[in-house]
Amino acid sequence: MTNTCSERISMRQDALWIIDRSIKENMPDKAVENALKCKDFSGNVILVAVGKAAWQMAYTAKQCLGRKITAGIVLTKYHHVKGPIDGIVCFEGGHPVPDENSIKGTQAALKLVKDLSEKDNVLFLLSGGGSALFEDPLVSLAELQDINRQLLESGADIVEINTIRKRLSRVKGGRFAQSCSPANVFSVILNDVLGNSVDMIASGPACVDTSTSQDAISIVEKYHMQISDKARGLLQCETVKKLDNVECIISGSVHQLCEAAANACMELGYEPLILTDCLCCHASDAGLFLSSVARSHQNHEKPLAIIAGGETTVVLTGNGKGGRNQELVLAAAEGIKGTENIVIFSVGSDGTDGPTDAAGGIVDGFTASAIQGLGYSVHQFLQNNDSYHALELVNGLVFTGPTGTNVNDISVALIRPCTACE
Amino acid sequence: MTNTCSERISMRQDALWIIDRSIKENMPDKAVENALKCKDFSGNVILVAVGKAAWQMAYTAKQCLGRKITAGIVLTKYHHVKGPIDGIVCFEGGHPVPDENSIKGTQAALKLVKDLSEKDNVLFLLSGGGSALFEDPLVSLAELQDINRQLLESGADIVEINTIRKRLSRVKGGRFAQSCSPANVFSVILNDVLGNSVDMIASGPACVDTSTSQDAISIVEKYHMQISDKARGLLQCETVKKLDNVECIISGSVHQLCEAAANACMELGYEPLILTDCLCCHASDAGLFLSSVARSHQNHEKPLAIIAGGETTVVLTGNGKGGRNQELVLAAAEGIKGTENIVIFSVGSDGTDGPTDAAGGIVDGFTASAIQGLGYSVHQFLQNNDSYHALELVNGLVFTGPTGTNVNDISVALIRPCTACE
Repeated sequence: MTNTCSERISMRQDALWIIDRSIKENMPDKAVENALKCKDFSGNVILVAVGKAAWQMAYTAKQCLGRKITAGIVLTKYHHVKGPIDGIVCFEGGHPVPDENSIKGTQAALKLVKDLSEKDNVLFLLSGGGSALFEDPLVSLAELQDINRQLLESGADIVEINTIRKRLSRVKGGRFAQSCSPANVFSVILNDVLGNSVDMIASGPACVDTSTSQDAISIVEKYHMQISDKARGLLQCETVKKLDNVECIISGSVHQLCEAAANACMELGYEPLILTDCLCCHASDAGLFLSSVARSHQNHEKPLAIIAGGETTVVLTGNGKGGRNQELVLAAAEGIKGTENIVIFSVGSDGTDGPTDAAGGIVDGFTASAIQGLGYSVHQFLQNNDSYHALELVNGLVFTGPTGTNVNDISVALIRPCTACE
Repeated sequence: MTNTCSERISMRQDALWIIDRSIKENMPDKAVENALKCKDFSGNVILVAVGKAAWQMAYTAKQCLGRKITAGIVLTKYHHVKGPIDGIVCFEGGHPVPDENSIKGTQAALKLVKDLSEKDNVLFLLSGGGSALFEDPLVSLAELQDINRQLLESGADIVEINTIRKRLSRVKGGRFAQSCSPANVFSVILNDVLGNSVDMIASGPACVDTSTSQDAISIVEKYHMQISDKARGLLQCETVKKLDNVECIISGSVHQLCEAAANACMELGYEPLILTDCLCCHASDAGLFLSSVARSHQNHEKPLAIIAGGETTVVLTGNGKGGRNQELVLAAAEGIKGTENIVIFSVGSDGTDGPTDAAGGIVDGFTASAIQGLGYSVHQFLQNNDSYHALELVNGLVFTGPTGTNVNDISVALIRPCTACE
């Protein structure tokens, strides 16, 4: 009637292996390797790598392409250059606020791609943090920083912030790719913006911009922003609406995180079912929904893995310690309480869930009773946003350490047929 | 790039047809018909039909089995007997509070199944409302009513209430089936309790009871209930823990509602995927989760129907008009905003969603913009629990009228490949 204890342990081991594999497949080096596998460059390759993972991505590209790369620049955060790369100049700059060194590096990149021919290729490797690191402003750095501050303080969302930023920059909003023209731009993106909207990552240096000048002006009015006449004039200029020299690969994304998890599940004999790669609802309800799906499939005749990727939200009702992944699985623990063949885990691919040292959590049908057995209430832990301490009690935290990538979260329910069913 | 307007209309028509078919398949008559299809009685059949749908179920059983039914009793709510049924005696009684007539009918049923032989069959047809209608208390009716009142006022949940009820009754907690022994009991249940826990429906007259005397005594202590010594003595008696003369068919349940929806979807060319038949989370988050799943599958090459059955909950934060199904689809409208080939609907199978005259709602990727275009905010409607008025603005309410069955809710996302995709 029930799965044995050793089998529950083995399902947990499966879970940890799936987590490890899914994240590794979405590391910057793997992302570049996968993207370049299918690409055959004719002509020279000029490398421009920007973002927190720029050095790692450039290093891998150099290993893949060797002497095809004739020149290149890495532009990353301070202390993120891990050594010299043959033929590549490395810059470090300010993050999250751009500084003079960001600008210096960006100007060097612009210089490198100037006067290229149609036969040349720019390999543009982009990762998180690019918005601050890749910047050559059309206003003074001081005004740019002031405008950024006003936007953040006003509560403007990331779409609004980028709509403004794109117009005050020589590289954002497709302008970098425009500068590369007539050379071909092959852009490889490690994506941590939900839904794969590539023009949002680093404000899309190699993407056409879908926002309009009208949008930009409305945002300034909406938040009563104080800006110079020069800035106002720039906001009225339209960004790039057409680019025919760009090919873009999103390699490393929540979609690929789901695919990697599905492959890992298959290797362990679980039939994978990817429900979604754009999950966005409250963490605890996502946990309940996922556990409903798992419960409805608990009599499936074969091992099954139900996968959801995305980014949930937490409503703060208490002052406990936790993160969205931990809250999701703690709610799920209530949802699968009493079942004997389900394990649910959820982790952030960056390895840090909320302000905690855990990547996420893992639960099974015994977790909720175990917490109650210790004299605590799952409901109260949830109310107090204290999922970390609840899971800590029952060995339900998952630790990976910071992973070096960030492609959102993944939540998986593993279901195995009961082996000892009568 | 986009589905035409006429196609969106046709998807809505599909939705309404699927709703109609799913509910019809779960009407009391259909439920009995489906259950009896696979059953071949040898020997006499004694019919006992209890609950709000008892008359309809008995009527259909009579049509299916004809003269095989040698005697029978219908025990339903006042004004629910729709005419005579040949060879069957009809009783009407109090609901939701049992009265003298409930007891009279129950005693007649007990008399009918007394002294049967192993060759006899009791066809026991059970629907919602049976808890009050099928009752022959072991305490006085006055004390039973007082205990019920105490339980309700204390905030006891349905499991706790039934744990007490079962022990104060001659028919609940498996005792009716025990009275039928040695005759065989074929029990057909129209289930409106989530999760198909059959011993919860009408406190399980033909089911073994999983609760214990210990549980019952704890509940009395927990709520500081005032009960007679006689009642206390009864609570200490154990209920039926083993029944070998009962076969139970749940025909008409949220599971079957999902199956019926899946079949209806298939008939229209949609590949059905039943995510869950035990959904239980907040309505608006269920809508967001379902829309995430739909968005992730919007490029599926074939028409697809993603199905979730269950019962969501609404958190009251405002004083608007709506129901859980309407709130689910309104949140989903935000989730699928801008998509062109998704329709999401959700309805209560009883035809009344919350305190409204609508069964639920239906939305597509244009719904949220349409509401905004009229100068309203979807978010504010949700905040105010005013989904009815939001959906009313955009022809998003679904009306079926009261259906005569109640097997929880069904939510479906229909996805069609874009026909004019480039």
